[in-house]
Amino acid sequence: MEKSPKFAVIGGGSWATANVKMLCENLDEVTWYMRSVYAIEHIKKQDHNPNYLSSVEFDNSQLYLTSDINEAVRRADVLIFAIPSAFLKRELDHLTESLQDKIIFSAIKGIVPETSLIVGEHFHKTYNIPYENIGVITGPCHAEEVALERLSYLTIACSDEEKAKLVAKHLSSDYITCKTSDDIVGTEYAAMLKNIYAIAAGIAHGLGYGDNFQSVLMSNAIREMKKFIKKVHKMKRNINDSAYLGDLLVTGYSTFSRNRMFGNMIGKGYTVKSAQMEMSMVAEGYYATDSAYKIVQETGAKTPIINAVYGILYQGKEPKKVFNKLAEKLD
Amino acid sequence: MEKSPKFAVIGGGSWATANVKMLCENLDEVTWYMRSVYAIEHIKKQDHNPNYLSSVEFDNSQLYLTSDINEAVRRADVLIFAIPSAFLKRELDHLTESLQDKIIFSAIKGIVPETSLIVGEHFHKTYNIPYENIGVITGPCHAEEVALERLSYLTIACSDEEKAKLVAKHLSSDYITCKTSDDIVGTEYAAMLKNIYAIAAGIAHGLGYGDNFQSVLMSNAIREMKKFIKKVHKMKRNINDSAYLGDLLVTGYSTFSRNRMFGNMIGKGYTVKSAQMEMSMVAEGYYATDSAYKIVQETGAKTPIINAVYGILYQGKEPKKVFNKLAEKLD
Repeated sequence: MEKSPKFAVIGGGSWATANVKMLCENLDEVTWYMRSVYAIEHIKKQDHNPNYLSSVEFDNSQLYLTSDINEAVRRADVLIFAIPSAFLKRELDHLTESLQDKIIFSAIKGIVPETSLIVGEHFHKTYNIPYENIGVITGPCHAEEVALERLSYLTIACSDEEKAKLVAKHLSSDYITCKTSDDIVGTEYAAMLKNIYAIAAGIAHGLGYGDNFQSVLMSNAIREMKKFIKKVHKMKRNINDSAYLGDLLVTGYSTFSRNRMFGNMIGKGYTVKSAQMEMSMVAEGYYATDSAYKIVQETGAKTPIINAVYGILYQGKEPKKVFNKLAEKLD
Repeated sequence: MEKSPKFAVIGGGSWATANVKMLCENLDEVTWYMRSVYAIEHIKKQDHNPNYLSSVEFDNSQLYLTSDINEAVRRADVLIFAIPSAFLKRELDHLTESLQDKIIFSAIKGIVPETSLIVGEHFHKTYNIPYENIGVITGPCHAEEVALERLSYLTIACSDEEKAKLVAKHLSSDYITCKTSDDIVGTEYAAMLKNIYAIAAGIAHGLGYGDNFQSVLMSNAIREMKKFIKKVHKMKRNINDSAYLGDLLVTGYSTFSRNRMFGNMIGKGYTVKSAQMEMSMVAEGYYATDSAYKIVQETGAKTPIINAVYGILYQGKEPKKVFNKLAEKLD
């Protein structure tokens, strides 16, 4: 039998926890890095992550837990990064171990604020990782439903099909179906943009718009996403595939999405600052909006929804007025 | 000033009531036909429909109510049909008045069971109405949100653009934005197919599938819808426009949709008969499934979701087994 490559998951949040769970269905050992020594001790004693998806019970004999990112990198052939994009650079700054020859998959939905790059590009440009060693793990997938072992579909994207298949194989199980894709740029931008559209959906809901409007908003959002991604990276893709449309829908229609909740608070009249403080966590889409808007300025894509969210979050514009105007542009 | 054409709405349900409300924003008089003499008397005295959207208050001076369909037809230039497709033929059988020279718009989402035709085709083939006098009014639009005057978008389709514009103009208001289309066949099939997909969404929910799966199901549904419609009527259309994708989403994600509720009961173990009796009304999608399946047999479109729903509703197949198999075909 072929020997499995060694996997490490980088991150202690819910999506990292879900990834470890999925890998544990297939592997004898998964290396799991997280910052919190307390959480690691808890998992070792109580078999579950105290902070996220605490219903998931792990078999500690399968886990190699470490709070040393260098140790995690050293032990693994395949690294799955699943930390908020806002913290990625901070974590990577601790790296002394080389990333050369590692296969790096991003399960991060966002953009690295310091470099305004999607995660794959960040690894490529900052660490000289060749693109054939970089991949993306994308949904539509709420981590909470992985915890419940509810049937979910992932798309595993890599320009090197063999590597996509390798990661897909080790994430698949009774309740996880994986398909592969070679559109690493498009899937990653889709995963980032959907958070902006989820903020928009939240703002609309907070302002009192109903389900009729939401469906029109989502219908416009997928068309806008298609235009945006086409400008950034033109290739043949079906924007209605699960990795794009499915991912948009699972986030845009989820009342649990942090991005949607954040938008909802803005729509209800919270300032951006107070909404962020109330949520005790910055929604990924907040940074994504800034980055996407900059890209739009460069590429000239027609993106009224992104522009509207940017105006509200970064230019202090009145949500009600902005959405009144936006509504005229939708069809 | 140009004289407005005379409008009549045929039907007493919630979507008919919403259409009358929208027209009353623009017209001095709207003829409104419904079968129930009791409901007519109630509206005359109490200013609202006792059975549907009862929060909508009408100004009786704008309404010409009649329980005589021939009188309604005689009085109007433009007829908007908004009765369940299952009852259309029964109503039309009372017609002695000619439909020649009338402009006929269908606000019906379904298929005429007796002829297996979409409503436009039914009027064309049974009454010899030329296609340029036939149009479609489609959502995404819950009638309940029209009642609340929540911003909603309609698509008005007719091969004669002037007639589409005419109807659009008279339905538009502060809270209704209309766009026009020349894809009468595609929009009507979309409105019909979305009810089948809403049943599928309901079955999935009833069986315990989660949001991750639902988003994959909807992502597959819109691709399937595109293929289905393309086989029936090939033309350039963007399936992600509101009339197709938006309409699918507003129904598929609505917990109020009768079709989704019907599916949900089936998924939870009700037989088709008992679910229908429990709902005291037949979901449009039930007939649509039969008709769509027949069309699939003729056209050879690849439609695993329609086939799955057909198997459950008409071939007595076990929902759980059918969806296990369907899940393998989705991606």
